[in-house]
Amino acid sequence: MRDKFMQMAIDEAKKGLEEGGIPIGSVLVRGEELLGRGHNKRVQDGNPIAHGEIDCLMNAGRVGSYRNTVLYSTLMPCFLCAGAIVQFGIKKVIVGENATFHGTGEFMRAQGVEVINLQDEECISMMRDFIQNKPQLWNEDIGVD
Amino acid sequence: MRDKFMQMAIDEAKKGLEEGGIPIGSVLVRGEELLGRGHNKRVQDGNPIAHGEIDCLMNAGRVGSYRNTVLYSTLMPCFLCAGAIVQFGIKKVIVGENATFHGTGEFMRAQGVEVINLQDEECISMMRDFIQNKPQLWNEDIGVD
Repeated sequence: MRDKFMQMAIDEAKKGLEEGGIPIGSVLVRGEELLGRGHNKRVQDGNPIAHGEIDCLMNAGRVGSYRNTVLYSTLMPCFLCAGAIVQFGIKKVIVGENATFHGTGEFMRAQGVEVINLQDEECISMMRDFIQNKPQLWNEDIGVD
Repeated sequence: MRDKFMQMAIDEAKKGLEEGGIPIGSVLVRGEELLGRGHNKRVQDGNPIAHGEIDCLMNAGRVGSYRNTVLYSTLMPCFLCAGAIVQFGIKKVIVGENATFHGTGEFMRAQGVEVINLQDEECISMMRDFIQNKPQLWNEDIGVD
């Protein structure tokens, strides 16, 4: 079941799509407190590092400790974003889906991260449509050439 | 043996130290062509994602394909930076040292990345001095709390 934070991540993804970007959104929370939100900005900022989760973590800024934080993402994280999650000690990740991109659920779980996958239909169709419309942009984002 | 690109990475690290930041520098090259250079800017930019390698990859911008690129870093990458290397398909990494931070050499090698570790004395002493002087800042950077 989708909660308000996953809805916020989806809203971020849609904002990215409207800007001509890649529709992946993310939020970082601690309990009921929103620490940061963001979306993929590879196209908008010409920044290959600005994946949704990374943009969210940048916007959250120096939170000091990531203890008890939960990261939401509309899509299962890639190695870049999973690396950030593991390195910063974020112990819980809630993702919209991994049907369009398998991602690194196994890697994160092996590193002690709890990963919950909602397989949300709207998240799936949003990415499926995007990949169909702009396959080159998607391949660039995940380092396929 | 240190080549000109590792020297450039060390110069970046020193620039970071002069700015009051964490002394880790990085450059991205393809053959003799310099694609990007950068250094850790957590303190300078208040950005937890701006590790040395990440700042370098941001500065390089959208290079399209990372085929045949080599990433230099004065320090063995953490999971965040190793995740970027693996996801983007960078197949060779040359690091200054891993005596002060063990890092993710095993992870990168298991993912097919060639990792060369110079154990450069200047890189080691630069980080050793920094960690001794500012242990809290260093722990924040690698997500220890």
